[in-house]
Order: sequence, then structure tokens, then C-alpha cells
Amino acid sequence: MEYTLSQLAEQVGGTIVGNGDCVISCVAPVEDAGAGAISFVSSPKFVKYLADTRAEAVIVKEAQAVDLPVPALVVTNPRATYGRIASLLYPSFRPAAGVHATAVIENQAKIDPSAYIGANAVIESGAVIGANTYIGAGCVIGRNARIGTNTYIHANVTVYFDCHVGNDCIIHSGAVIGADGFGFEHDEGSWVKIPQIGIVRIGNQVEIGACSTVDRGAVSDTVVEDGVKLDNHIQIGHGAKIGEHSIMSNGVGVAGSTTVGKNVIVGGMAGIRDNIEIADNVMITAMSLVSKSLDKPGSYSSGTPIDDTRNWRKNTVRFRQLDELAKRVQQLEKLVNK
Amino acid sequence: MEYTLSQLAEQVGGTIVGNGDCVISCVAPVEDAGAGAISFVSSPKFVKYLADTRAEAVIVKEAQAVDLPVPALVVTNPRATYGRIASLLYPSFRPAAGVHATAVIENQAKIDPSAYIGANAVIESGAVIGANTYIGAGCVIGRNARIGTNTYIHANVTVYFDCHVGNDCIIHSGAVIGADGFGFEHDEGSWVKIPQIGIVRIGNQVEIGACSTVDRGAVSDTVVEDGVKLDNHIQIGHGAKIGEHSIMSNGVGVAGSTTVGKNVIVGGMAGIRDNIEIADNVMITAMSLVSKSLDKPGSYSSGTPIDDTRNWRKNTVRFRQLDELAKRVQQLEKLVNK
Amino acid sequence: MEYTLSQLAEQVGGTIVGNGDCVISCVAPVEDAGAGAISFVSSPKFVKYLADTRAEAVIVKEAQAVDLPVPALVVTNPRATYGRIASLLYPSFRPAAGVHATAVIENQAKIDPSAYIGANAVIESGAVIGANTYIGAGCVIGRNARIGTNTYIHANVTVYFDCHVGNDCIIHSGAVIGADGFGFEHDEGSWVKIPQIGIVRIGNQVEIGACSTVDRGAVSDTVVEDGVKLDNHIQIGHGAKIGEHSIMSNGVGVAGSTTVGKNVIVGGMAGIRDNIEIADNVMITAMSLVSKSLDKPGSYSSGTPIDDTRNWRKNTVRFRQLDELAKRVQQLEKLVNK
Repeated sequence: MEYTLSQLAEQVGGTIVGNGDCVISCVAPVEDAGAGAISFVSSPKFVKYLADTRAEAVIVKEAQAVDLPVPALVVTNPRATYGRIASLLYPSFRPAAGVHATAVIENQAKIDPSAYIGANAVIESGAVIGANTYIGAGCVIGRNARIGTNTYIHANVTVYFDCHVGNDCIIHSGAVIGADGFGFEHDEGSWVKIPQIGIVRIGNQVEIGACSTVDRGAVSDTVVEDGVKLDNHIQIGHGAKIGEHSIMSNGVGVAGSTTVGKNVIVGGMAGIRDNIEIADNVMITAMSLVSKSLDKPGSYSSGTPIDDTRNWRKNTVRFRQLDELAKRVQQLEKLVNK
Repeated sequence: MEYTLSQLAEQVGGTIVGNGDCVISCVAPVEDAGAGAISFVSSPKFVKYLADTRAEAVIVKEAQAVDLPVPALVVTNPRATYGRIASLLYPSFRPAAGVHATAVIENQAKIDPSAYIGANAVIESGAVIGANTYIGAGCVIGRNARIGTNTYIHANVTVYFDCHVGNDCIIHSGAVIGADGFGFEHDEGSWVKIPQIGIVRIGNQVEIGACSTVDRGAVSDTVVEDGVKLDNHIQIGHGAKIGEHSIMSNGVGVAGSTTVGKNVIVGGMAGIRDNIEIADNVMITAMSLVSKSLDKPGSYSSGTPIDDTRNWRKNTVRFRQLDELAKRVQQLEKLVNK
Repeated sequence: MEYTLSQLAEQVGGTIVGNGDCVISCVAPVEDAGAGAISFVSSPKFVKYLADTRAEAVIVKEAQAVDLPVPALVVTNPRATYGRIASLLYPSFRPAAGVHATAVIENQAKIDPSAYIGANAVIESGAVIGANTYIGAGCVIGRNARIGTNTYIHANVTVYFDCHVGNDCIIHSGAVIGADGFGFEHDEGSWVKIPQIGIVRIGNQVEIGACSTVDRGAVSDTVVEDGVKLDNHIQIGHGAKIGEHSIMSNGVGVAGSTTVGKNVIVGGMAGIRDNIEIADNVMITAMSLVSKSLDKPGSYSSGTPIDDTRNWRKNTVRFRQLDELAKRVQQLEKLVNK
């Protein structure tokens, strides 16, 4: 793909300083870029590379748009603009619309003619695949599931029956949408399964990483709202609701019936227990265990810091005595204050 | 599906109070239920909804079975009975028995005539699929693996060669049964693979969640006993044994050669190290690290509580000084006691 | 498979004591072994079984090679030698070379004639599959991906477009190589995707466990060097680099742009944050959170020890007061020292 800088500016916004006719065909870091490449500078520590850059053009904030050796696109958020331009220069692979000869399309599935269904994919009865949507090789889209428009589902994804995925979503390989929530009742020595009769509803512009799972609801649905971004190995439990534009790094677990607000940021491998509420704009640091509702925005953490194992071991021994230690300090305070 | 309340009582037990001929076709929460719906009340906080419920019938304990506006099924464990009734009303999808035209059945695989093999599934040589078992689209059942009767394996599951899955099991998409255990020996700067020649043996009435893995044994088999329920993203290491009716939430890891007893409950994302033993009836809270055998029943935990990040950071600094702090308190005690 | 002890010694090294013509057909623990079985003794606690073993032969260190009732192979590392011998006795299943009738080989894919492509596997356009490589049923190898020689990819693995896997690798089912790294920029209330234009480069003799993920780079590639062994459910973030012969247990997460050195050992479910460096020969214990670079070899840990929940709860309350407690001790010291 090739665009002039002016064409890019038309699509992603920003003001051109210099020659808008230069032709951009790739992206590169500002310090390594060569002919045809566009680079962005966001962080102050890369500003120094601007004076000598060999990039075809650069994306910068207004403050950096002076005395540049190359044309510039001036914007308020260079990294976001970089992302939008890179998406134009490196579009996702889109084969011609159609159904691969080896795909299985069951009766009453409805495939939009502009969609693509990959090799050995299975679209079960009653499923609906929207316009311009890509279903990768080996995917299984269950009975009556609905996949929206312009959604990209990579190879070997499973969507269970009746579940909904919105428009403009990306789902990566190995992800499983709509497996049974984990519901059992102990009765006379064994566990009785509670059927999971809700579905999963995934909004628009949602990205779900490789090997992530979103379970179907026990009764009420599991909901992932618009703009949510989930990394790999994530678990969203039955009946949970993830608010708009929240983002979770690798390995996060959200247990059942928990409501996570909007614009929440969750660090990798954090766990959020069931039946609690996380307020909008909360940030949770990596590997924290959230064992209670967090009703105010802010940053939250748990855990202990990395240390060399010998020191750590000594301190953990003391951790097991911490309540006793605190009582001894109280006792000392009483004695000393007398 | 539709049943009269009497028909349900015949199948799941309990005593009918009121008209057993009412027709039940769905389940719903007691506060939202309408015609045709059955609801259950277990927790005291929902009892208040009974007086005005519009459910067709309710499932209650004996104490609540008075002055009800609708017919009731009286049982000792309403939620368990609800689960059994919901399983009748919402049975798992069962297509007509047979092998999908696109499934690959290798020579010498034995498929019971009452089983169903889905689209693009692969049943390798010598594998045995029992009566009434459902193998979803895209599953791969390896050479000489044995799947019991009435087991439901959702799409895109992989069972490695020689492994056994029992009767009445459910395995969710993305699960992998029988991959190599993680065994290597360091030798002259690199790792020599220890072949994993054991298998996996999964009992009856076991449920395994999406993207969970049970590794084959190094020499002795990995065993998951009857009635065990595993959520998503779980890892059971080589040679581990999980006792009957134990239950593990999302993301739990059990390392190799560890024995977990019966009726053990493990909270989400807890880790259990290798070569230890966990007694029957142990409960482990979420995200705990079990680094030693637990030989008595009871509840066990590790970790630190969630806090706002600023406080947490101050406390974690002190955690690294905890041994020193304890020694300073000892010193103070000596001085004060003199 | 059967070998004489002499034949095995020729292939794996070591000195024979006793009759090298004995025929070995299986392996077994020294205390259980019978005719045809070879056993190894490494740990001192198994030495006592040597005197009465019924094994066909044993693998021992020189110090144990005296007065043995059976032939012995004397080596410096019995367990490593055991691993090599077991690999000969229990070779991975290798069907005759060729492409299964149901596999989809797109135009311009290059399959070495000695490779095997399993049922319903999909090899996309331009992909290259090397000599003696096995691609299991249901795998999807993306456009222009390159898989080396003698590599074994189990069923239902996904390798994204352009990614490289080396020679003599093993990849287990459910693994996903080359999904998008997790890169987004927040802009005006939503997240802009940063296209991930790097690839994954996996070296030789690498093993990757079931349901593990290695993400493609944002710009620079994600690299897993020769001899690395990754267990199940592992995440390697975009642009990370894992040094030669490092080994990670189940559930480890390595975040983006982090460099892990050589011969690093990471315990299960440990998390390593982004943009840091871990020195060669570091060991990290299970469930530790590595929140900063570790620039010296040694063992590192975080977390707190398992305890019964009641004690743990009391101590965690004190943890939240730890900074205050430390200040009270300082105050006491001032008072007492006066």
C-alpha cells in the first residue's frame, strides 16, 4: 500500500508541514527510518532523533514541528495517528469474498455475500455472518450465533450457539466465546450442574486475544461492551459485565456476576472475584487480587515486591508472625508510655 | 421442552404442594418469572419475592412452603433441584446420531452407532467413541484414545493418543487432554526431553472448561477422578491426581506429581506446587500459592489484600524490611524489659 | 522398539558394565521394573532398590556401578541418559510422509515431500513446511509462515502469517504463534489499535506447551531462542526476547519488549512486566511478580506463604498497617534510646 502524506492526512486528520506529496509505504522507528517510511515521535527521549531522521515523513506534536528536515504531519496524539496510518499501510489480509470449498455451511446459516469463510470452518445452522466479516480457517460458529459486520475472526476460534459478536471486532485464535459458565451446587456429596442458559453479548470494536474465554451466562447474559480490549488468556466469567473501553492485559480473570465499569485498566494476571463492582476509571496493577468492590476511581494493588529469595524467605516467615509482632509493639508502647 | 410439575417431581424428587398439572417450560428468577416458568428460592434474601411471584411454580425448602400463591416443589436443596430441572428443560443440543460427511474417521476407529461426530472432526486410528457421545466440530481424538458413553465434547477440543475420558463428561472448546508433561533434564547446557509415556485417565461425570489442559504422565498416569469439575484455563500437571468431587475455579495450576484429595475446593488462579499432597476437604482461596503439603482439612490462603496503590507501595517497602523490623522489636523488648 | 544395551550405548554414550547384549524394550521405575525394562537411578533415595532390581538393565553413575545384579550403563547424568533412551524406545508417532486427503494446501505453499500434513490441516499460501516435519490434524499454518525441519506440531495449533518456527521443535495443541501483540493508544475516549507488523521467530529445539501464546511484534520481532522450553498457558508478549535454554513453567506471562536472558528458570504462574531485562541464569520462583529488571544471576521471589485462612486474614490486616507499624517502632526506639 502507498499513500501520499496528503492522502493520509485526509483519512486520519492532522496538519501537514512541508511537502504533502511525498509517498509513504511503510512505518519505521524514527532513528532507523529510510525512504518511504513514516515515523512518529511521542516520547521526549526520541525528539533528539528528529533533526537527523531519514524518514520520508514524521508524525509529531505541534511543539516539535519546527526546523524538521522532512515533511511532518502535526497532530495532538502522534502514537494514535501512527496506529491509524499503520492500519492503512498494513491492512488485515482480506481474500475475495466467498466461502472456501471445504467450509461447512449448515442449513439456514446466513452468510453475507461480502463475507469470507475460510477453509474447514464450520458455520452451524441458523448462524448469521455479517457483511465484510472474515472467518478464519478451522473456526466453528455455533447454531444461531450472530457475528456482525466487518469483524475479523482468526483461525481456530470457537463461538458457541446463540452468542453475539458485534461489528468491527477482532478475535484471535484459540479464543472461546460462550462456553458454559462454572455453576454447580453441592448436593449429597457431588456437584449438580446448573445449566447455563444465558448467552454472551460482545459489542462493537472489541478485541479478544488468543486463548481467551468469555463464558455464557447462568441466567443473565455475559456482556462485553463496545471498545473493550482483552489480551490473551483472559477469562470473563458467567454474567460478568465489562464496561465500555475497559482494557485488560494477559491472564486476567474476572469471576462470575462481577460488573467492571468503563475505562477500567487491569494489569496482567490480576484476579477479580465474583459478585463485586469495579467503578469506572479504576486501574488495577498486575497480579493484584481484587477481593472486594472498588467504588472509587483510582489505582489499586496487592502483592509483595520482588526480592532475592533469601531475603524474601526471611520476610515471609515474619509475615506469618505479623499479627503477633503488631501486638508486641502495642505491648511495648504501653510499657514505654508508662 | 415442557413438563408438568408432577413429571418433573418424578424425575428429580421432591413433594408437590398445590397443582402438579401446571406446565413448566422455562426457568426464571423468582422476581421476574412469568407463565410457564419455574423459579427456586434458596437464599433468605429472595424469600420476600415468593408472596407476589408470577412464576408457574416454585422450588422451595419446606419452611417456605406455606401460603404460596403458586404450586411448589418442596425439596431439601432448591438450587440443586433447580439445576436438575433446568437440565431437563434445556437439554444439550443432540443432533441425530451419525458421522458428519466431512468428519475423518481413520481405520480401526470404533464409533458407537448412537454417537455423533461433528463436521471436520478427526477420529484417529483405534480411537473408541462410546454410546450417545457427542464429538463437536473440529475436535481431534487421537490414536487409541477412548471416550466413554454419554460424554459431550464441544468443538475444537484435542484429546491426545491413548488417553481415556469417562462417561457423562463435558469438555469445553479449546481444552487439551494429554499433551506432554513438562519434563526435562539439564545436561551440558541444554535441556534433554524426558518422554512422557503415561496417559491421562479422566473418570465419569467430570467437566473440564475451555482452554484447560491435563497433561499426560511422565511414567505414571495423570488421573482426574469421578465428579471433578474444572473451570477454564486450568492446568493439571503430569502425574497429578485430582480426587473425587474436587472443584477448581479459573486458572488454577496443579504441578506435576501432586495429589489433591477429595472434595477439595480451589479458588481461581491459585497455584499448587509439584510433589505435594493436599488432604481431602481442603479449601484454598483465590490466588494462593500452595508451596507445601496441606495434611489437614480447612481453609488456606496466601497473598496480601487489595489496597490503594500508594498505601500498598509504602507497605511493600516495609515488607522488604520485615525481618529487620522484627529484630528491632526484639531488641526493644530486651531494652524495655531490663 | 527394541535395542540391545550396546546399541543404546552407541547412540547415547556411556560405558557398559556387564552384558551389553541384553535387549531393552521399555522403561520402568527401578523398584517396579521387570524383564526388558531399563531403569535409571539418580537420586540417592533410590539407590537402595538397585540390589534387588529385576530390571533388564540400569542407568547409573559410576559410584553406583558396583555389585549390581544386572547390566548397567554408566554415565554422568543418568536422568538425561534415561530421557535420550526413552526417546529412542518411545518415538513420536510418524505416519508415512504425505498430505492427508482432507488437508488444504493453498497455492504456492511448499511442503517438503518427507513432511506429513494431517487431516483437515490448512497450509495457507506461501507457507513452507520443512523436511520430516509433522503437522497435526486441524492445524492452520498461515500465509508465508515457515516451519523448519523435523519439527512436530500437534493437532489444532495455529501459526499466524509470516511467522517462523525452527528445526526440531515441538508445539502442543491449542498453542497460538503470532497473534497480534497487545498494543493500543488511548485517544479521545477509546483505544486506537497499533498494528503489529513484526513477526515471531522461534529458534531450534524449542518446545511450546498446550494453549501457550507467543505474540507477534509491534515493530521488532518477538524472539524465542534455541533450546527454550515453555510449558502450557504461557504468554510471551510482543517484542519480548527469550534467551537460549531458558525454561518456564505453566502460566508464566512475559510482557512486551522484555528481554529474558539465557538459562533463566521461571516458576509457574510468575509474571514478568514489560520493558525490563532479566539477566542470564536468573531463577524466579512460582507466582512471583517481577516488576523491575534483575541484572544479577540468582534466585528471586515475591508473595507470601500459605497459611490457614484465619491466621492469614489477621496478618493481612496488619500488612495494610505495616508502614504505620514501622513508624511506631521507630518512635519507640527514639523513646527507649533517650
